[in-house]
Amino acid sequence: MKRTLIAVTMGDPAGIGAEVALKALDRRPKSSTTRFLLLGSWRVWAETAKRLRTRTPLVMLPDPETARGLKGGVGVLELGGPRTFHMGKVDPSCGAAAVSYIREGVRLAFQGRVSALVTAPIHKDAVHRAGYLYPGHTEMLADWSHTRSYAMMMVGGPFRITLASIHVSLRQAVKEVTLPNLLEKLSLTHRCLRDWFKVRNPRITVAGLNPHAGENGAFGDEEKRVVAPAVRRARAKGWNVTGPYPPDTLFHRAAQGEFDAVLAMYHDQGLIPLKLAAFEKGVNLTLGLPFIRTSPDHGTAFDLAGKGKADPSSMSEAIALAVKLSNG
Amino acid sequence: MKRTLIAVTMGDPAGIGAEVALKALDRRPKSSTTRFLLLGSWRVWAETAKRLRTRTPLVMLPDPETARGLKGGVGVLELGGPRTFHMGKVDPSCGAAAVSYIREGVRLAFQGRVSALVTAPIHKDAVHRAGYLYPGHTEMLADWSHTRSYAMMMVGGPFRITLASIHVSLRQAVKEVTLPNLLEKLSLTHRCLRDWFKVRNPRITVAGLNPHAGENGAFGDEEKRVVAPAVRRARAKGWNVTGPYPPDTLFHRAAQGEFDAVLAMYHDQGLIPLKLAAFEKGVNLTLGLPFIRTSPDHGTAFDLAGKGKADPSSMSEAIALAVKLSNG
Repeated sequence: MKRTLIAVTMGDPAGIGAEVALKALDRRPKSSTTRFLLLGSWRVWAETAKRLRTRTPLVMLPDPETARGLKGGVGVLELGGPRTFHMGKVDPSCGAAAVSYIREGVRLAFQGRVSALVTAPIHKDAVHRAGYLYPGHTEMLADWSHTRSYAMMMVGGPFRITLASIHVSLRQAVKEVTLPNLLEKLSLTHRCLRDWFKVRNPRITVAGLNPHAGENGAFGDEEKRVVAPAVRRARAKGWNVTGPYPPDTLFHRAAQGEFDAVLAMYHDQGLIPLKLAAFEKGVNLTLGLPFIRTSPDHGTAFDLAGKGKADPSSMSEAIALAVKLSNG
Repeated sequence: MKRTLIAVTMGDPAGIGAEVALKALDRRPKSSTTRFLLLGSWRVWAETAKRLRTRTPLVMLPDPETARGLKGGVGVLELGGPRTFHMGKVDPSCGAAAVSYIREGVRLAFQGRVSALVTAPIHKDAVHRAGYLYPGHTEMLADWSHTRSYAMMMVGGPFRITLASIHVSLRQAVKEVTLPNLLEKLSLTHRCLRDWFKVRNPRITVAGLNPHAGENGAFGDEEKRVVAPAVRRARAKGWNVTGPYPPDTLFHRAAQGEFDAVLAMYHDQGLIPLKLAAFEKGVNLTLGLPFIRTSPDHGTAFDLAGKGKADPSSMSEAIALAVKLSNG
């Protein structure tokens, strides 16, 4: 039997990435079928493990494949890193190192040498100062895997929520509620539920943009002009898509299990209910990539870095989801 | 000891108003200090009580004050109503009757003859067809009580949430995030918490408009241009106002009891978390009126009218809040 191998990137060495990854792996029950490969600086992984007194042995590996054969512990692929840096400080050399770990992760995942990629948080300023002008993780992953159509799905508690737009102003988010954009997000969501979550004929519902989903045009016409036509077009493809529904009651319905996923019209429409129902348990799943990629829904938390107090719950969930989807 | 007297309007006779009011009153424990006065059609109240077999006796009263002296049961002020109508149907004569009940309620509350007004839902089309072109309940109450500055606060579960705007498109809601509007809503919220909820130095927090509260201007500048200045101006008045904070984590924090109230920037920003945390338990409290007014957060539910299946939870909470605030 071929074991599932999951790669976990360290993220910014000055952040809480290594800490939450090691704590999360420490909490996992022993598995005969899954192995992990840590990507990052051996020194940082080893020092973090020593500081936290984690029990899982770390094994430095000559090449990624060796990880599958490990009897116990987790494999580490030594990718180097900054010689000196301070925990919790923005440092271009940490940014550059974090980018190199992601790059290796994408390479391994793209080549099918690992089943999934779990990424610990990077710091945007550090990455920018290192000369990489990507808005975030997702855009790097998309670029290096030649992916043009992608989206963020947040998974947590009772919810799977795809966002129609992410890090743009609310004013701009309203403008991004377009027929092509919604159809693209519906297509990505449908494919993900069918191929990764193995849901047959997945039930996807679409939130309205306006209060009461516009109340029949009285407060905003985007539902009539854009959202309802997108739902009709999706249904014409044979997908089980419903809506647009009034956003304030929709998430309550979704929490009762009425749908397999919700398409939210803007960042906070999806993130407010997600963080309320599943605080520190939310996982970011990138749709559209040629491989499975998850990440915790928090940042580098520089204020907590090196103190041993970071909560690994979201990383645990991110790892668990990567394992689950890898094993179909 | 003078008893507290709470008026409850029937709302649209063809809706679920009388049903939820009678069910809610039936559920209340006997009180020696509070009496209720129902405003509406005697015939509809009496027939609804008979149909539902509620236990609380209804007593037709010659004038409102008599209600305070009742030994048991609830008083009814007969205000007439449509002679014939069908449950669950839009009918201008029902709309006109519903308006007349609110009008009487405002008169009694404005004159201090009742301590609070609880209003059952009206149907906007029925009201409009009766010739009253108000957008909703709140605007009628404000007009008839000569109130210019008012707002909606939603109370439910762990939340008290004031909305910066209500029934407008999201596009328009973004435009209503202005300094004067936010200051007005903060003032109304502060006064309500201090005078009605008896909270000393109430902690009010303000949500951002944009994802991550704009991330320092990267996704929208309203936080810098408008929301932060409003918070500073409010603090200069000596009020304990904080924010703007990232909306997605703010409601989680509010649910932990960190604030006495949240000012939400638009309808769904407040209503999504409220309905998720307190579904069918939300109460609408109108701020700025010269009297206490609460209402359930649902509509006339014409599809359920006359079937005896309506859930009175939200009406129960609306009555409980009116009693609580009346008794200080």
